[in-house]
Amino acid sequence: MGLILLRYGELALKGKNRVAFLRQLRRNIRACLKENGLTGEVTSAGQRVYVETEQVEEALEPLSRVFGLASLSPVVEVERDIDAIVREAVRQAETAGVRPGVSFRVDARRADKTFPHISPEINRLAGGAIHEALHGDVDLSKAADVTIGVDVRAERAMIYRNVLRGPGGLPLGTEGRVVALISGGIDSPVAAWMMMKRGCAVIPLHFSQDEEDTAKALDNIEFLSHYSYGWRLRPTVLSHAEAVAPTLQRLYDLGEERWACIFCKRTLLQRAAALCEELGAHGIVMGDALGQVASQTLPNMEVISYGITKPILRPLIGMDKAEIVDLAQRIGTFETSTRSEHSCRFLPARPLTRGTVERMLEISRRLDEMEGQGT
Amino acid sequence: MGLILLRYGELALKGKNRVAFLRQLRRNIRACLKENGLTGEVTSAGQRVYVETEQVEEALEPLSRVFGLASLSPVVEVERDIDAIVREAVRQAETAGVRPGVSFRVDARRADKTFPHISPEINRLAGGAIHEALHGDVDLSKAADVTIGVDVRAERAMIYRNVLRGPGGLPLGTEGRVVALISGGIDSPVAAWMMMKRGCAVIPLHFSQDEEDTAKALDNIEFLSHYSYGWRLRPTVLSHAEAVAPTLQRLYDLGEERWACIFCKRTLLQRAAALCEELGAHGIVMGDALGQVASQTLPNMEVISYGITKPILRPLIGMDKAEIVDLAQRIGTFETSTRSEHSCRFLPARPLTRGTVERMLEISRRLDEMEGQGT
Repeated sequence: MGLILLRYGELALKGKNRVAFLRQLRRNIRACLKENGLTGEVTSAGQRVYVETEQVEEALEPLSRVFGLASLSPVVEVERDIDAIVREAVRQAETAGVRPGVSFRVDARRADKTFPHISPEINRLAGGAIHEALHGDVDLSKAADVTIGVDVRAERAMIYRNVLRGPGGLPLGTEGRVVALISGGIDSPVAAWMMMKRGCAVIPLHFSQDEEDTAKALDNIEFLSHYSYGWRLRPTVLSHAEAVAPTLQRLYDLGEERWACIFCKRTLLQRAAALCEELGAHGIVMGDALGQVASQTLPNMEVISYGITKPILRPLIGMDKAEIVDLAQRIGTFETSTRSEHSCRFLPARPLTRGTVERMLEISRRLDEMEGQGT
Repeated sequence: MGLILLRYGELALKGKNRVAFLRQLRRNIRACLKENGLTGEVTSAGQRVYVETEQVEEALEPLSRVFGLASLSPVVEVERDIDAIVREAVRQAETAGVRPGVSFRVDARRADKTFPHISPEINRLAGGAIHEALHGDVDLSKAADVTIGVDVRAERAMIYRNVLRGPGGLPLGTEGRVVALISGGIDSPVAAWMMMKRGCAVIPLHFSQDEEDTAKALDNIEFLSHYSYGWRLRPTVLSHAEAVAPTLQRLYDLGEERWACIFCKRTLLQRAAALCEELGAHGIVMGDALGQVASQTLPNMEVISYGITKPILRPLIGMDKAEIVDLAQRIGTFETSTRSEHSCRFLPARPLTRGTVERMLEISRRLDEMEGQGT
């Protein structure tokens, strides 16, 4: 039976919410194992969570996608005996490639204070043995190439290396639900991922314009599901044409087609707000960035979000395109998002870059009149 | 006379806006030089901007804070002569510490195609000379410890090393104005900085609760001003008590003090929206994060922002606390923000964590009635 040690970061700060957060984290870890066809026992002790499993190697990568986890290490347990500890430390240092020119350190803790060797002594004994056996360079700083961890507990001692980074954030589900607009593009899946990272359960909403774009959006959601342990992503797919075509047709009839993108986005946000009400979500997530396309301006953002009753969460608003692309590549959505160019059939020749709320309200009134007259 | 080569990133993509963006970037670079007591000529050619100055060393650090710049290199100009180029390349490699065990590469370009040596030949000649003189290890990949750049232009050749990273983003001022709520805390200055990075001109708004907290907020704004070249940060300071005390007093009278934080923040946002109207800004920047304090929940965010007419920009909403702290340290605001703990005198014993819009509107009506009765 193998063991994986999981460390959590931010939720350690959470005071009295800590118990509920930790419960959700363990639940999500169990969901992660199950969805990846793995079996294992999840327990926690002090500031750490452990997974006991026969499938350590297979479990590491999926577990590194559970939000709330800061880092992961596979662990070997040995007897509470200094010789056994030193032997296993040397074995792991060798596997880790310690040799002349490769620096290492031993980082021992002694949770069980009855163990006859104090931590610096364990460091010295194990470090000395590794140096003698493998001729690696001792480096007491954290910059060492290889760190061998030793934890002496009441019953057994744990030896580990290979600290994998977790994704950070908060356990998914602890911060409530949001509706996320998801397209086939680069930005919106990254925005949804960032809110998942901060503990939100995401309800994906896609407005379908054509089959290929919708296939891309659904693929993006599939990639996101590899991070959504404990909450199933159930996409709502609505027809884009049904949602916006009548409004846009009237806009063209009015000769106000430059407003098409603004009225389109307003309509989508109104639909998203209604879905929030229906499903108990408290915010709408968008992939809005600034200055990436001509119509992504602050004045337009003001007009688009005017009067929308749910908070609009734009986690990418302060990010550079290069940073967004890096995240898309990490999540896996970048290739999907770039495999074909999507162009909107309603896109006017010169979309407005500086709309005003007054004009928007005026045009809205005229659109309402036209609708009233059945045109 | 010395020369600095400045590369810009994202704005290269901007199509027909590129000219205006580049003009703003040059203007901001000039403001940076001036505000740091430096003199220099700013010119651009192709995809690059140059600063010609007697004060290369002094100018590098301030220029590395101009948004829109991807990287900076001090440059030495030599004759368009292969021997002069090779000599200077060896000299710079020596200064950069190339020696046995330190890898290097030469990265030559030939803008002037009449120069008799093609780029790979310049790389080979200069690289060979560096290896012979300093015995450094040739590494043709970008992972080399030291890269010596060579640019052969029509009149002179440029040799450079030491690529400093710029802050990225878009030239400040190109994306319009926003009002940013700034406190003495960690988050709000980072949020403002991120929107500055995306090209926004920030109007800082601080609600003063006590002298010490206001001193911290003004210090934070002072740090931000070292990034706000081309736009002077002029803080608006309003009395927090004057803005919120009457409302909060009535809330306590109603026995609804658990709503204090929500009504306080609503009042501040309404003031911020009014300031936007007055000063032509199109959004309100807040340091909101999720789950960091008990009242920072999605349901509360919904209630707080309900009916606020300007878009609320929350660039930190998808970030971990550790990421926010890293940025605060980089900007310089972290120490200010943590030098004392600020506690609000209106803070109720158990602030609400899940308000609803209906309840908020109901309480609002009762507060309005009390105000009408002059209580």
